[in-house]
Amino acid sequence: MPVYKAPVDDVMFLLNDVFPIERHNNLPGFADATPDVVEAVLSEGAKLCEEAFAPLNLSGDQEGCVRHPDGSVSTPKGFKEAYDAYTGGGWMGLSMPEEYGGQGLPSTLNTVMQEFVSSANLALAMYPGLTQGAIAALLVHAPADIKKTYVPKMVEGTWTGTMNLTEPHCGTDLGLLKTKAVPNGDGTYSITGTKIFISAGEHDMVENIVHLVLARIEGAPAGTKGISLFVVPKFLVKGDGSLGERNGVSCGSIEHKMGIHGNATCVMNYDGAKGWLIGEANRGLNAMFVMMNEARMAVGVQGLSQSEVAYQNAVAYAKDRLQGRALTGAKYPDKPADPIIVHPDVRRTLLSIKAFNEGARALLVWTALKSDIAHRSSDAAERQSADDHMGLLTPVVKGVLTDLGFDNAVKAQQMFGGHGYIEESGMSQFVRDARIAMIYEGANGIQAMDLVGRKLAKDGGRAVMGFFNEVGAFCQENANDESLKGFVAPLQKGLADLQQATMWFMNNAMAKPDNAGAGATDYMHLFGIVALGYMWAKMAKAANVRKAQGDGAADKMDAKLMTGRFFMERLMPETATRLACITTGADATMAMPAEAF
Amino acid sequence: MPVYKAPVDDVMFLLNDVFPIERHNNLPGFADATPDVVEAVLSEGAKLCEEAFAPLNLSGDQEGCVRHPDGSVSTPKGFKEAYDAYTGGGWMGLSMPEEYGGQGLPSTLNTVMQEFVSSANLALAMYPGLTQGAIAALLVHAPADIKKTYVPKMVEGTWTGTMNLTEPHCGTDLGLLKTKAVPNGDGTYSITGTKIFISAGEHDMVENIVHLVLARIEGAPAGTKGISLFVVPKFLVKGDGSLGERNGVSCGSIEHKMGIHGNATCVMNYDGAKGWLIGEANRGLNAMFVMMNEARMAVGVQGLSQSEVAYQNAVAYAKDRLQGRALTGAKYPDKPADPIIVHPDVRRTLLSIKAFNEGARALLVWTALKSDIAHRSSDAAERQSADDHMGLLTPVVKGVLTDLGFDNAVKAQQMFGGHGYIEESGMSQFVRDARIAMIYEGANGIQAMDLVGRKLAKDGGRAVMGFFNEVGAFCQENANDESLKGFVAPLQKGLADLQQATMWFMNNAMAKPDNAGAGATDYMHLFGIVALGYMWAKMAKAANVRKAQGDGAADKMDAKLMTGRFFMERLMPETATRLACITTGADATMAMPAEAF
Repeated sequence: MPVYKAPVDDVMFLLNDVFPIERHNNLPGFADATPDVVEAVLSEGAKLCEEAFAPLNLSGDQEGCVRHPDGSVSTPKGFKEAYDAYTGGGWMGLSMPEEYGGQGLPSTLNTVMQEFVSSANLALAMYPGLTQGAIAALLVHAPADIKKTYVPKMVEGTWTGTMNLTEPHCGTDLGLLKTKAVPNGDGTYSITGTKIFISAGEHDMVENIVHLVLARIEGAPAGTKGISLFVVPKFLVKGDGSLGERNGVSCGSIEHKMGIHGNATCVMNYDGAKGWLIGEANRGLNAMFVMMNEARMAVGVQGLSQSEVAYQNAVAYAKDRLQGRALTGAKYPDKPADPIIVHPDVRRTLLSIKAFNEGARALLVWTALKSDIAHRSSDAAERQSADDHMGLLTPVVKGVLTDLGFDNAVKAQQMFGGHGYIEESGMSQFVRDARIAMIYEGANGIQAMDLVGRKLAKDGGRAVMGFFNEVGAFCQENANDESLKGFVAPLQKGLADLQQATMWFMNNAMAKPDNAGAGATDYMHLFGIVALGYMWAKMAKAANVRKAQGDGAADKMDAKLMTGRFFMERLMPETATRLACITTGADATMAMPAEAF
Repeated sequence: MPVYKAPVDDVMFLLNDVFPIERHNNLPGFADATPDVVEAVLSEGAKLCEEAFAPLNLSGDQEGCVRHPDGSVSTPKGFKEAYDAYTGGGWMGLSMPEEYGGQGLPSTLNTVMQEFVSSANLALAMYPGLTQGAIAALLVHAPADIKKTYVPKMVEGTWTGTMNLTEPHCGTDLGLLKTKAVPNGDGTYSITGTKIFISAGEHDMVENIVHLVLARIEGAPAGTKGISLFVVPKFLVKGDGSLGERNGVSCGSIEHKMGIHGNATCVMNYDGAKGWLIGEANRGLNAMFVMMNEARMAVGVQGLSQSEVAYQNAVAYAKDRLQGRALTGAKYPDKPADPIIVHPDVRRTLLSIKAFNEGARALLVWTALKSDIAHRSSDAAERQSADDHMGLLTPVVKGVLTDLGFDNAVKAQQMFGGHGYIEESGMSQFVRDARIAMIYEGANGIQAMDLVGRKLAKDGGRAVMGFFNEVGAFCQENANDESLKGFVAPLQKGLADLQQATMWFMNNAMAKPDNAGAGATDYMHLFGIVALGYMWAKMAKAANVRKAQGDGAADKMDAKLMTGRFFMERLMPETATRLACITTGADATMAMPAEAF
């Protein structure tokens, strides 16, 4: 049975020492988030994840979801009770506005909790995760009465939410979508069409399901400029808030997937279902983007989550499994063999995962704090800078954390040898579940194009210049700090590679956009390594300070510094290869005729 | 339904133009292997794979194997008929000695056929694959009467073979194995113990199953020097060759695995089963190594096989799926969108797989030819040099081709977006099936240690010096060939990185073996890139020659050269990062106490 322990300590180090959230106690909700409160909240959340979510992960994978002939869908045994424990504990509304029943705490805490629940049980975590995304879209774009009808029920978790974008012939290219909306004359619309890959589209855990649906109003322009967003409840809601008749939406089938078996991925058939417009007509993509950005961050979190839980299990196995002897002679001569954690290649593997996990967690906390600032600060300049950061880092977080999260789940599985290939070990599930995160909410190639094609040039490159300035300033400020020597120099080298790649795009991709397209994925990963490297430099600095305080955390801080050193020595050098690939340009990529592939 | 077409053309280019096998027609069996014969044989093999094996791949995965209460195991529908078509066509004995019913053709052809069958249906291909490995071990080490009893039946495919090494507590570290062999006094032994992860351990496709089993003779020394190899048939064989009573070996359960569902992975219980010693007592590992080296090569082939079939399906999808427009403007304005193969990031992904596949195929053909020379040449020096090559390249082929084969299956799956995550697409199966190849026959970390810890230093480094000399000489000879400019320079740079890494080990790992251990995986991959780069340089040279012949192959040769250019520009640069990681040494890897992981 796989193990999981939520890394509360590591989060507290980030929130107290690296990005002290106390600095932000002028923001709404932050004053309540004192270190003690935060630690208590996260410890409670950890308990829920470890005791209610994690024990259902493997069984949920094996049992999967079942669609019955009447179109209803059963979730795996125990899922409803665990979901109820989550909503009953108020976790859905952790950082939602108090006026809708939430607790108004920083969304940073919700991001942390997303990591914990996703590590513990990704398939189960998706039900509330999608609901939170749907709430976010409603809060920004829905008219007041719609908000009042739906949001409180969703915050309390009595109703869940979904996103309905994809159709059989259109995923990335939403301009092709065909689902149509015909005005009923009473302000409502009649929605007809087929949506696929709808996570949590139908299930048995709640009374009602609130579908957010992209559709084209009859007569609207073709392409992306004719798409509108609608809310379509499974059951219509009466004036008093109670549930009325069944709406014309149903689950036609559920998919047989590689992983996340415990989440029902549905084909949803809309057959004249009643819907209400959210936001302006034909501006549905804008409204959906709110949800998508939240969702992309959350998917980045999922990448880390699988890497973390896979790592924990690999470490436990590596300490337990006796096989062979250390190269430098037996470490446990009284045992029949040494535990495999003595072997350098095992340690290298584990450290490369650990160095990613802790760096990625820092990147997420940093970015989540920016999200809080962007939404809650009263200072316009601060909001803008935070928003710049969010826009720039969202594709990096989504693309890099899910690519590497998957790779790490594979590496962790490898530590088990043949035992990792057997489903009972749980390692296969981490790999299979992690795989989806590279695909949904915009496949990672799309994230790379978003970064290179849109985010870099936006507002004259203001966001990326802001990032370069911040990292550059850190390097300059700490250039003479002997204790950071192993961190600042490699970070500076990585930053220089990133800046050179950016400059190369400026000089070579304006006239020839294929040069950007062919280098986009390498650039996204180059960016990710530098961002993680910056996180490690900041963590090393904080660890040095904390160690000097002599409060008993010295061993932990030493481990932090050793892990950081490993990152700098073993993971940073990749920037050179990424730069080399980018600057070869698109010629070799574009030359081949399609029929020669 | 996934597609598969065996790459006969590409193989013929390798056998005729790159490594002309006609040069070797003085070797036994090669005289019969004229280009026409080879093409006819491979085309027939291709047909079998495309028409009999491939159509059962997805259904075999979904159906899996079933163990019945009596210990018998059913394979998926159609497997037995496809296996019979394979054996009926004489494929098992393609390169086996004629005196045992084989056709005596070069084993290179069998390696090629292994790729085809593994691409078409890996789980099914393993049944004959393991049998061929078992035959190889028997041919080298078994006494004449044992060979006569078992080998002809296995060559005709009436009986299959297995390898029984692993036990619950011992995989890599075979010194720990406990299965015991007690002499019966009549020259036979009574074998008792439990073996796990036994592929094809029990099934319903043949009359008898021939288990090769490692066990410890009562009173033998502890550790690896007390292990012997036995043959243990499922049914005892009578003097006239007919089957007698059931032996004391049975399948206790079958594993629930991530992939290769169509292959029965068994727990085998030996309960006083009758066995016959193969080779010398206590020298079982030596005998098993014959089988393991063959098997490691074959597993490298499996890595390529999944990359190839996944690539073919990704290309088909990329030409068919309409989504978005080319960055340089619509390529198919009459269609609702362009096929995604117009997008640079899609092409980059596909080309990186294609460049690997063709390079890996060359590496396998080159190495298979060396195997033929090592086994069949009458020239001792030629045999030794070929054997050096085999020993050195086996861990590279196994480790690198399976790591990258898996990565490529994942990349190919990514091309499908959400559709690739649905089992019906078949892409998930390629990923799940490819995953095992990184694990079995020695997990890839073990391959890296074999390369760095054993193969490099063997015979004073003779093998690796031979490799460096060959690649270096090629670079020197072709340094002034303008048409190879884009190939020789990057290869030279890669070779220099590899030589520098090798030198670094010589200077730093003798006194401190952890420096070798911590750099082993990076070194194996560095070696792999250079070996693949050398293959590309040789292929480019052959393509130039062929193109000049003007025999209508110009388009194909252009595609070859373009793919090679992509390899050199996009995949070779990784050598620098690998070198940088190796030369940081083991300190950061070994510093952390186990409890801090």
